Amino acid sequence: MRALWLDDGRLSLVDTQVPRREGECLIRVSLAGICGTDLHMRRGYASYTGIPGHEFVGIVEEAPPQHRSWLGRRVVGDINIGCGTCQPCARAQKEHCEQREVLGIKARHGTFAEYVSLPASNLHPVPDTLDDRAAVFTEPVAACCRILEQVAIGPHARVAVLGDGRMGLLATQVLATTGATVVLLGRHESRLAIARALGLDARPAPEAPLAPVDCFDIVVELTGRGDGLASALGCVRPRGTIVMKTTAHGTPPLATWPIVVDEVTIVGSRCGPFPPALDLLASDAVRTAPIVDAVFDLEHFNDAFACADSGLKVLLRPGGPRT
Amino acid sequence: MRALWLDDGRLSLVDTQVPRREGECLIRVSLAGICGTDLHMRRGYASYTGIPGHEFVGIVEEAPPQHRSWLGRRVVGDINIGCGTCQPCARAQKEHCEQREVLGIKARHGTFAEYVSLPASNLHPVPDTLDDRAAVFTEPVAACCRILEQVAIGPHARVAVLGDGRMGLLATQVLATTGATVVLLGRHESRLAIARALGLDARPAPEAPLAPVDCFDIVVELTGRGDGLASALGCVRPRGTIVMKTTAHGTPPLATWPIVVDEVTIVGSRCGPFPPALDLLASDAVRTAPIVDAVFDLEHFNDAFACADSGLKVLLRPGGPRT
Repeated sequence: MRALWLDDGRLSLVDTQVPRREGECLIRVSLAGICGTDLHMRRGYASYTGIPGHEFVGIVEEAPPQHRSWLGRRVVGDINIGCGTCQPCARAQKEHCEQREVLGIKARHGTFAEYVSLPASNLHPVPDTLDDRAAVFTEPVAACCRILEQVAIGPHARVAVLGDGRMGLLATQVLATTGATVVLLGRHESRLAIARALGLDARPAPEAPLAPVDCFDIVVELTGRGDGLASALGCVRPRGTIVMKTTAHGTPPLATWPIVVDEVTIVGSRCGPFPPALDLLASDAVRTAPIVDAVFDLEHFNDAFACADSGLKVLLRPGGPRT
Repeated sequence: MRALWLDDGRLSLVDTQVPRREGECLIRVSLAGICGTDLHMRRGYASYTGIPGHEFVGIVEEAPPQHRSWLGRRVVGDINIGCGTCQPCARAQKEHCEQREVLGIKARHGTFAEYVSLPASNLHPVPDTLDDRAAVFTEPVAACCRILEQVAIGPHARVAVLGDGRMGLLATQVLATTGATVVLLGRHESRLAIARALGLDARPAPEAPLAPVDCFDIVVELTGRGDGLASALGCVRPRGTIVMKTTAHGTPPLATWPIVVDEVTIVGSRCGPFPPALDLLASDAVRTAPIVDAVFDLEHFNDAFACADSGLKVLLRPGGPRT
């Protein structure tokens, strides 16, 4: 099969074996999304070698006998595969299993390929009403839904989302479903305009630190930059909460004393639940069409990554155009 | 009156006015403690000019008519004075009032002086059974009690206190009252020995990052160093909690991606409630005698600060020896 291959930050198109795994389902990838983590990995984050990509929607083409009901179904999939026996796995926290494989990020080939293999327990059926170009956002929307599991956001909360990238535009929509006042703060007028077209309150990011009266109860850090935590600390009120999402490489300088003096809570936030993400996408509470910049065939991966570097969501079509 | 004076990091002994304030109580300071913050302030933290010091025990010598019942009482005192009208003050969070004064740290003369002024509402009577040398620890013990307000510590929690300084020795005792397994990790064998003499589980700090199986559910960062958060991240389990206490100057480098990947929660923690602190001291659940290195008269402040720099708790006796 055709696939992209990442080795020491270099990406290439290769012809490689279909990744069949004993007891798992084989999925033909219809669409795959390029994520900020994929871009960071090209700059050395996570030291991964293999097929990258973890966002996808596809069709199950092969399944072991006990999972034949999945055959032919359109699916998205959880990206973490745990060992199944350790303490985090026993707590249903396979994303924190020390031996975990992570699709296209750690020890398991990903979705920038014609086929991907996953255990049936990782799969979620896609509602018929949800088209591929929206369903491919399930994983990043799930990561936004994780915030709702971690932080209580009441209707009176003042929430800021820092960063007008693809995740910022998704997270602002997800958080707005709580009824709270949610403001997207960004630096790109073109993206803020997209946010406004989505009905969101989007404003140019002010110079931090903000005046106390302008500070937010909850700040969701989605800057994609190493200095994102420092920026977030400049926008949060005393005893407020920062949710951190950026997994950038590097060791930027950080004054930690404001965390103590202002008694700020910082919550690291990673992968989230797929069912509510599918619900939000199917109900149009989260809209993705304006966020898609382009769809590329696999062989045009260089153009695709260049586009993703400067733009919003770029999709790959590993199977080529539908015939 | 005699007092120490801090100006641009330089400390001197001065003769200055008794700090009477309209409507407040005037307290003759019996003992005052030198805290890590005082040491950091000599290195530029907080840019404070005036009389430093915020830990004390003393006797109320003057009081306004409506607070005459305080006259002659032995007291300790909350160090934050809010404006009384802003939103944090309305929430009973005067320690986060933007206009707050903080005893010996911000806009209000402190306790390294013969007299200090405080509103009656900041005062707490000291039980007769508690001697001055223990009562002077009320403020730092209260700061340790703040952790119990912020983080639920069940009896099955594995807790590490990072740092075998004065605060580490106090916090370990306070946290041990929860019934949790609490380990003090430090770098000074002499202090670990004191901790063991206090009945605590104290061990040399291992090289971080720890193996996953050795990681802790909760890590209390009391290193006093700017890189304390990085050290704490190396000791906490995925989805664990770090409580940060150090208010060191500087901007050390920090890789923030492990906060996200391991979904760690970081809780900044500052001042705490005095009543439980007085209870813990009065009941001997927190013992302080082995932590006191020395007591100095005010004129020997240079020796006192040198001793505090390398040692544990150093006390100042602003009134000189009792006659």
